[in-house]
Amino acid sequence: MGLGGVMMTGFDLRTLDLPVKTYFDCIPCFVRQTLDAARMVSDDTVLHERLMREILVATADMDLRRPPPLMAQHIHRRIRELSGNDDPYREIKRRFNRTAWDLLPALKSRIDAAADPLPMAVRAAIAGNIIDLGAKTNLEEAHVREAMERCLDAPLVGDVDQFAAALRHVDTVLYLADNAGEIVFDRLLIEQLLPRRVTVAVKGGPIINDALMADALEARLDEMAELVDNGSDAPGTILDDCSAEFRRQFDEAPMVIAKGQANYETLSNAPAPIFFLLQVKCPMIAADIGQPVGALVLKRSEG
Amino acid sequence: MGLGGVMMTGFDLRTLDLPVKTYFDCIPCFVRQTLDAARMVSDDTVLHERLMREILVATADMDLRRPPPLMAQHIHRRIRELSGNDDPYREIKRRFNRTAWDLLPALKSRIDAAADPLPMAVRAAIAGNIIDLGAKTNLEEAHVREAMERCLDAPLVGDVDQFAAALRHVDTVLYLADNAGEIVFDRLLIEQLLPRRVTVAVKGGPIINDALMADALEARLDEMAELVDNGSDAPGTILDDCSAEFRRQFDEAPMVIAKGQANYETLSNAPAPIFFLLQVKCPMIAADIGQPVGALVLKRSEG
Repeated sequence: MGLGGVMMTGFDLRTLDLPVKTYFDCIPCFVRQTLDAARMVSDDTVLHERLMREILVATADMDLRRPPPLMAQHIHRRIRELSGNDDPYREIKRRFNRTAWDLLPALKSRIDAAADPLPMAVRAAIAGNIIDLGAKTNLEEAHVREAMERCLDAPLVGDVDQFAAALRHVDTVLYLADNAGEIVFDRLLIEQLLPRRVTVAVKGGPIINDALMADALEARLDEMAELVDNGSDAPGTILDDCSAEFRRQFDEAPMVIAKGQANYETLSNAPAPIFFLLQVKCPMIAADIGQPVGALVLKRSEG
Repeated sequence: MGLGGVMMTGFDLRTLDLPVKTYFDCIPCFVRQTLDAARMVSDDTVLHERLMREILVATADMDLRRPPPLMAQHIHRRIRELSGNDDPYREIKRRFNRTAWDLLPALKSRIDAAADPLPMAVRAAIAGNIIDLGAKTNLEEAHVREAMERCLDAPLVGDVDQFAAALRHVDTVLYLADNAGEIVFDRLLIEQLLPRRVTVAVKGGPIINDALMADALEARLDEMAELVDNGSDAPGTILDDCSAEFRRQFDEAPMVIAKGQANYETLSNAPAPIFFLLQVKCPMIAADIGQPVGALVLKRSEG
């Protein structure tokens, strides 16, 4: 299967006795995302068909106790292998980084002028999470522009006061970045975290349009934070797929800020005090969080 | 695989050298329809999971040269087997037949009063095709009411004049019914076909909410037509799955009226002069026909 110990060898009803991490509803969505991604990276219909058939077999055998980003990791590894392109989203990541830099000054002026800039910066950082080509392949830059222009006036739901309170008690923060483009908007929130010591973690290898070290450098986050990669090419943060060094940093962090729905899917049971900053992108997470699709959510982990 | 000679034993690129009947885009739709249908007929999540895993394996191995209704036939056979319910849609079919009878008199008055009743009756017969629980599981009766009330004023696109002209040259018509409920509205069009000899064909066994002989009798079509069943439990008309007697009737029919998208998917290459009366229900058929989703279409076969 190519997923190592993760796939099961057959149909196993035991999955139903355990907390289900991947909903049945995620499965048609995996299949659709596979086709969308295959078409995005290649015009070759032979590749599309081969990938679709492989991913159908993989989903048929999937362990539903594991979170959805694990399947996305598998899908995109196969897309890279079959297409011979080690980072099919490279150009689009560059483009969204540039778009974000264009939009940054106007956002920064409004945040700097606000009486309470922290929640404004949180809004901008969450709104930037719209730049997610996993959930929505055909994202238009005009759509990003419009969303960012509206976001500072959008409702922000969740544990906003707890977030501000938690920040008062720490002098270091581990910041788990999500997508390219979005990572430029993360500057606005990281500025509010200073002079605390901030470590920004990006992915260890290409996965959809998630930010890599090159994107963190294009966002010039090295000016304000320590940069690390997590050693993994999965969306979100699958801790047992991350490097030992990253896991140590994660375990020792007094406070974690985790961007995006995939981090929520992979870390929501983690013991650390994590603040998830995300846009709700699907009906299953909407039901889980109790907020509609599209909502800007700041949610503290239960742990 | 349970699909006899239809499924292939492995991945086969030869499918790509032939006209593709099932689009790649149909596959995520099969998976979603499987989950929707499983939930509609049972609350048992063990059944949902087992069915999903089976259908993922079946789609992974599917012959894309065959039309989508073949996979729907397989999905719903397995739903009936796993649930032990030989017709999970029985009650809902009764209910939609009653709804249609309630709406019939108002439609009939308007059609009878029209200067040219034939296209009005065609509109009503096509609009009734909204009652399709394959494409849309959670169809509300209020939605049907509203659609039927609007339909006589809705645009009707396609080969309307050719349809009227063709009728002038035949004295018998084979009418392929589609869904329960809808089949009551078919009375309005069949009345316009009289005094020609009309044969109405229903499905030979339960498949989603497609009309069976019981539904034709609830629609009291025996008052105005000969009734036959096609011997098949597939959506649409997969001729090699139909009875020899039905195939003979089909081959000898000087004119065929075929209701619904599944008949278009299964018969669009047939040599007979077929007039397809359908609502466009998905983007793939919309692209094929050149009309938007929701359009009321009367289309003559190419043959």
